[in-house]
Amino acid sequence: MILQQDTICALATPQGVGAIGVIRVSGERTFEIVNIIFKGRDLTKVDTHTLHFGTIRDENECIVDEVLVAVFKNPTSFTKEDVIEISCHGSNFIIQQILKLLIKNGCRLAQAGEFTQRAFLNGQFDLVQAEAVADIIAAESEASHRTAINQLRGGFSKQLVKLREELIHFASMVELELDFGEEDVEFADRDDLKNLILRLQAQILPLISSFSYGNAIKNGIPVAIIGPPNAGKSTLLNTLLNEEKAIVTPIAGTTRDILEDVMVISGIQFRFIDTAGIRETEDLIESIGIERSKQAIEKADIVLLLSSLNATGEMEQFDIAHLLKNKDVIQVINKIDLFEKKAVYDDWLGLSAKLGTGIEALKTELLNRVQDKKTSDVLITNLRHYDLLTKTNEALNEVLQGLEVNITGDFLAQDIRLALHHLGELTGTITNDDLLINIFSKFCIGK
Amino acid sequence: MILQQDTICALATPQGVGAIGVIRVSGERTFEIVNIIFKGRDLTKVDTHTLHFGTIRDENECIVDEVLVAVFKNPTSFTKEDVIEISCHGSNFIIQQILKLLIKNGCRLAQAGEFTQRAFLNGQFDLVQAEAVADIIAAESEASHRTAINQLRGGFSKQLVKLREELIHFASMVELELDFGEEDVEFADRDDLKNLILRLQAQILPLISSFSYGNAIKNGIPVAIIGPPNAGKSTLLNTLLNEEKAIVTPIAGTTRDILEDVMVISGIQFRFIDTAGIRETEDLIESIGIERSKQAIEKADIVLLLSSLNATGEMEQFDIAHLLKNKDVIQVINKIDLFEKKAVYDDWLGLSAKLGTGIEALKTELLNRVQDKKTSDVLITNLRHYDLLTKTNEALNEVLQGLEVNITGDFLAQDIRLALHHLGELTGTITNDDLLINIFSKFCIGK
Repeated sequence: MILQQDTICALATPQGVGAIGVIRVSGERTFEIVNIIFKGRDLTKVDTHTLHFGTIRDENECIVDEVLVAVFKNPTSFTKEDVIEISCHGSNFIIQQILKLLIKNGCRLAQAGEFTQRAFLNGQFDLVQAEAVADIIAAESEASHRTAINQLRGGFSKQLVKLREELIHFASMVELELDFGEEDVEFADRDDLKNLILRLQAQILPLISSFSYGNAIKNGIPVAIIGPPNAGKSTLLNTLLNEEKAIVTPIAGTTRDILEDVMVISGIQFRFIDTAGIRETEDLIESIGIERSKQAIEKADIVLLLSSLNATGEMEQFDIAHLLKNKDVIQVINKIDLFEKKAVYDDWLGLSAKLGTGIEALKTELLNRVQDKKTSDVLITNLRHYDLLTKTNEALNEVLQGLEVNITGDFLAQDIRLALHHLGELTGTITNDDLLINIFSKFCIGK
Repeated sequence: MILQQDTICALATPQGVGAIGVIRVSGERTFEIVNIIFKGRDLTKVDTHTLHFGTIRDENECIVDEVLVAVFKNPTSFTKEDVIEISCHGSNFIIQQILKLLIKNGCRLAQAGEFTQRAFLNGQFDLVQAEAVADIIAAESEASHRTAINQLRGGFSKQLVKLREELIHFASMVELELDFGEEDVEFADRDDLKNLILRLQAQILPLISSFSYGNAIKNGIPVAIIGPPNAGKSTLLNTLLNEEKAIVTPIAGTTRDILEDVMVISGIQFRFIDTAGIRETEDLIESIGIERSKQAIEKADIVLLLSSLNATGEMEQFDIAHLLKNKDVIQVINKIDLFEKKAVYDDWLGLSAKLGTGIEALKTELLNRVQDKKTSDVLITNLRHYDLLTKTNEALNEVLQGLEVNITGDFLAQDIRLALHHLGELTGTITNDDLLINIFSKFCIGK
């Protein structure tokens, strides 16, 4: 990765018309270039972290806009380079004109994520923190936002970097032993090494197991609403969402498509999936719907198993136990406004989707189930992190096994190096172009 | 209009996901309120026009975001009040959280245009300039942008304010004469007054007559493309726009709906209107289309009268002269790729819409026609301004007529007062709540 020294610019605020738009410029020639088009104070002579009113003028001295420029001198800027942020009126026309003038005078339009990439390459933060920036912007619920902020603030990577440094020390010691191969010396205390690896795994394993929860927190926890036809699944969805999302009729088999919508309960985002009632049917469209319901159950973290009562207060026949193996199931009986629930169903949660009775209890139960899945305060939400932590853990296991059987130093060193490599890729100590392009191209322009 | 002293906040950047979002806070309690949620420097103790990194925290000390705050102390801010702009990550979730925290701690969500309204009420600029802020944001072409920037920079209102002050002086003098009614004194020199009024009218009349041009510049100059069926009107529209906007077939009467699209030529926005070919027809839908074509001609500033050549090089029969009275018509002959244009049609502009031949000459002709309409360097684009300038001019005419016939001082004073009132409303020296609400409610929130 060559650290590019050219000066980049981009709109940092969303596209569209608003009161103001902010154009960000970063690089060695920032002050020189902006000075050409900005009439006001000489920006090379002002203090860092100061704001200056003036005008942007084109080559004919025509005023393009009245602006405020914010000056950040390296290394006290986001990218650790010289940075200027130009606040102009939020018109697409003006923004385009100013970007054109910047480019004409020597800037290059930034690629997606290039500002954050420079911040990372200049040591502002590690790769996990850089990735958190994108997560923060995308976060839609309090829980996913908190996870991302946590990672931006150092989160799990700070501790890992420290442990990795200790491991590097051991790797060096073991490799030093190899230089003295004939002499059978031992610079690296094997007990200390084992102890370090156990400490590392104590950090890594909870992170690995937090992934499925963390990922659900980030993308919304999938909850499938299943049950026999006419149990009131669509009514329940509508009641939860507080809108008429699904068409509700008294006719069994009304829902055929999979309906999905998200709802945030106490800061946790749930992704509710209304499904077709599962029954034997000869209706082709309905049977496709039922097949999709089964797939929805597969993908769900939580299954709301909805049944309803008949006139005698008995639960309607409904046996799909075979579909629910290893699933986290909440048993719900609907229509308690019509019929009284018998004592034998006491472990079922009774509600009336129509009247809203029992909905709060259901929400509490959903939150409890989520809480049970939380294995660690720090969460992994990124597949790349999960993958590298898993690989690190496997390499560490190899080291441990090697220690058990008193493996030779060269094999030991190899396994330690592998673990170091994966950990290094995680925090960005070790990078390659493809990896960086892959990560930063997912950012928006201007970030 | 009561000058509201409470502290307001709003998102100033467009809605949507971006690298950064900017929240603007203005009012007496700005520093106090932001200090509660911002952890970093004590914002009451920093200099104006400085930037500070820190975190926004909620009431549980949880970090909502890492932000930069820009501090502007009154009166050196946009509103002339204490202002803080918080640059946060551009996530809707974060922006909502920060706005909630600001409101919880004493801010009120700003109404549309309220920041600009405060800037006006605090004397930052006059009403015409305040209105220019909205025009700048909405400008979509260089010409409309330049007109708006010109008005923001003082434009025509500065001169009018000066002349109005001179007129106030005369009004006072004339009214003073009334106090000495019995003594037949003359404090206001009638020749000087007449001279002043002529100078005022020399300012106002070009502005009034610039309105139709200025308005066209702002909204796009309407150009109707008319002609007989199959003359190639839709092909010409497509060629001008460089896209397949209109459906083109060799079948006469293909276009029935009015198709419209805008194009910017050398910074001037044109609004091209493709119409149904005008002919006698029994097709109901087509005849409705033809009726609409006639209406389009009514509304057009420029009419492109398109005809095509037949195999003998003669122009096809097409007489709609009765529709084109008082219209600015550009005569165009199409299909010169197929047939040679006879010398008798030399005053017609020949082109081939299909091949693009002659399109540049047509664009130049369009620009020439626009240039001819420009009566003044300073343009009026706002109906309110046009209306008030017209009323001012009428009142000034009354004053002039009064001077001619040596009208008594009290009538003279009355007409001068009327002119002063209209001029005062224009620049906002005289305002009322309804007027301000009407103007600023058209702004976006955060401006």
